[in-house]
Amino acid sequence: METSKETMEVGRKLVDFCKRGDNLKAVEALYSKDVESVEAMPMPEMAGKKGIDAVIKKNQKWMDDNEVNSVSIEGPFPLGDRFAVHYKFDATNRNTKERMKMEEVALYSVKNGKIVKEEFFYTM
Amino acid sequence: METSKETMEVGRKLVDFCKRGDNLKAVEALYSKDVESVEAMPMPEMAGKKGIDAVIKKNQKWMDDNEVNSVSIEGPFPLGDRFAVHYKFDATNRNTKERMKMEEVALYSVKNGKIVKEEFFYTM
Repeated sequence: METSKETMEVGRKLVDFCKRGDNLKAVEALYSKDVESVEAMPMPEMAGKKGIDAVIKKNQKWMDDNEVNSVSIEGPFPLGDRFAVHYKFDATNRNTKERMKMEEVALYSVKNGKIVKEEFFYTM
Repeated sequence: METSKETMEVGRKLVDFCKRGDNLKAVEALYSKDVESVEAMPMPEMAGKKGIDAVIKKNQKWMDDNEVNSVSIEGPFPLGDRFAVHYKFDATNRNTKERMKMEEVALYSVKNGKIVKEEFFYTM
């Protein structure tokens, strides 16, 4: 399956934004307003919420709750109109002061130059 | 989306086999005979070929062509009935003697305890 130039371009922009810590700018610049977001562990506060506003809220809550000590981002790895990114975080929960290492693979689907779906693969 | 125990079990077995270099045993033990295989860069010799026999042939050809110097395997990262694995290879082509670093994210779909689809995300 040929990878489109568009897929790689969106993937590279997303990774560049996220490496600078500009995750919200990435969402604003690259996401479709009707984006579908799928998490391995559903977040109760996100239940039934949809689209770019829910994704922005989820990102804001994560950043409010966690202080990122370091991050490693590998990718994008493309296939057709999708690309994968491997994230590793070392973060401290601002409330509990607990320090955690987290990692996940994200799979993004691109259509008309915008991310229309994000899917997060991980265990807790 | 809840991840099934089955998905994680198949994912862990696959990663264990591959870490031991037993990739063919992984295919024989864990793949459906009708498995669908999708590559970012289609291999001309695989065109039109399907199922587990084509996957075994592809794996054998890769191992015939390349000597693996080292490998890093991270995962499985699950979501629902799928899981992702991040592979990094340092290999030497037996014909050209060229040494290459390659990496890819693989996405596997599980049904009835067997892998029914493998999809490889990478650039060349």
